[in-house]
Amino acid sequence: MDRLSERREFAITVCQDAGAIALKYFADRSALIVDQKGAQDWVSEADRNVETFIRQRISQDWPDDGVFGEEHGETAGQSGFDWVIDPIDGTTNFVNGIPAWTIVLAGVTQGKTTVGVIHDPNVDETYVATLGGGATLNHVPMRVASGVALQQGTVAVGYSNRIESRHVVPIVADLIEHGAMFHRNASGALSLAYVAAGRLLGYIEEHMNAWDCLAGQLMIAEAGGRIEDQDADAMIRNGGRVIAGTPDVFDTLHEIAESAWKT
Amino acid sequence: MDRLSERREFAITVCQDAGAIALKYFADRSALIVDQKGAQDWVSEADRNVETFIRQRISQDWPDDGVFGEEHGETAGQSGFDWVIDPIDGTTNFVNGIPAWTIVLAGVTQGKTTVGVIHDPNVDETYVATLGGGATLNHVPMRVASGVALQQGTVAVGYSNRIESRHVVPIVADLIEHGAMFHRNASGALSLAYVAAGRLLGYIEEHMNAWDCLAGQLMIAEAGGRIEDQDADAMIRNGGRVIAGTPDVFDTLHEIAESAWKT
Repeated sequence: MDRLSERREFAITVCQDAGAIALKYFADRSALIVDQKGAQDWVSEADRNVETFIRQRISQDWPDDGVFGEEHGETAGQSGFDWVIDPIDGTTNFVNGIPAWTIVLAGVTQGKTTVGVIHDPNVDETYVATLGGGATLNHVPMRVASGVALQQGTVAVGYSNRIESRHVVPIVADLIEHGAMFHRNASGALSLAYVAAGRLLGYIEEHMNAWDCLAGQLMIAEAGGRIEDQDADAMIRNGGRVIAGTPDVFDTLHEIAESAWKT
Repeated sequence: MDRLSERREFAITVCQDAGAIALKYFADRSALIVDQKGAQDWVSEADRNVETFIRQRISQDWPDDGVFGEEHGETAGQSGFDWVIDPIDGTTNFVNGIPAWTIVLAGVTQGKTTVGVIHDPNVDETYVATLGGGATLNHVPMRVASGVALQQGTVAVGYSNRIESRHVVPIVADLIEHGAMFHRNASGALSLAYVAAGRLLGYIEEHMNAWDCLAGQLMIAEAGGRIEDQDADAMIRNGGRVIAGTPDVFDTLHEIAESAWKT
């Protein structure tokens, strides 16, 4: 009904093409950046231009769809299908030269995320999911880890300047008390994709924007993991908390997060 | 006197060749691993075989040099020059499928690290330094970040099961109190290389083994950063703490670490 498989193939191609554009900026980084101000201008230009590229492709192929993006705000649609763009997730890594950042595109209809693509051009990995259609990494079906206890694995955490940073400390402390390792690679979407691919056990962040998390949450659910039930339209408006993990550890991660955030 | 430039070129070639071997293991990972026991056997085999490869090359080209490695212990030498090998740094990432791990080779003579190579085959980046000879990333000179305050940047932390894990919590908390972001990508050598390349401001870990840290510490010093004065031979015997950073932040990182570790 939503021509989901067509939209999925479109999203894969667009993210990979956008990744090539972003990679060019990234390769030119050291030649272009001379100071912090210059760095900020450069990353803003890269972010804006990658998003503009994705928006142009959407308006060509899906002119009736709505679009929400980190950089350029909202374009209302008539189809009932909305695209949510993060042109470069992990901009701090991008600006600092760390090859851990992604292109993210999610599709939302009637409050549900129905398609999600996370493309990592640094190592050429494309994570894809559709609602009810499963999840793949470079065309191979992917599953969350199974049978791995919290004390045998690693959980990623995220935080940003949108929340009180020190709220992340009890989460780190609690993960360690539970015998788990923690990870923070500064790309939330990439970390969520790693959970879906069975590379990490879970992810906790107090506030994420829709463009950072919807695609990854869908992937985790479609790869057999657990996420919280959230209205995607409400996430587009306000963002929200993200707790996601394998069935083995999700309930414990939920307790850890609730305990940290109620303080 | 140590034929340093010859040894540097040797170390670069060996690390790149070893990286190709490790990448083959990594690519076959999902086909080979069926459970946690299998994962452990597989990563142990990869680690051992990569180290064996590096040892064979050393014994061919530098038969009188000593060798210390994570997997196979010590081979005494007569030349006064010792090689220190970490065949795969970031084995947890390696075994979980996260493309953030490196091949590390350092050379030590008379208590000083004189050559260091860290090769990241996932994105084909080779970080190199010689004592007094500067540091390069893919043949381009590299420098630590300059003029970036702690509250504008990111500091990486490491910890392992060799120390009391909860000692890392006050470091994370203190970095946040100072307005810095923290990073933990589970490859200490890669994080040290990032500091040398100006991608992170610093690195703190309570205990590292020599094969994890000597190469990265030399790079940071040669790229204009600050490290603690440590005897490399003592590090080979016992390992030790690692505090490293840009001149702008080193003293503060030192205070943060001392305060956390004295508890």
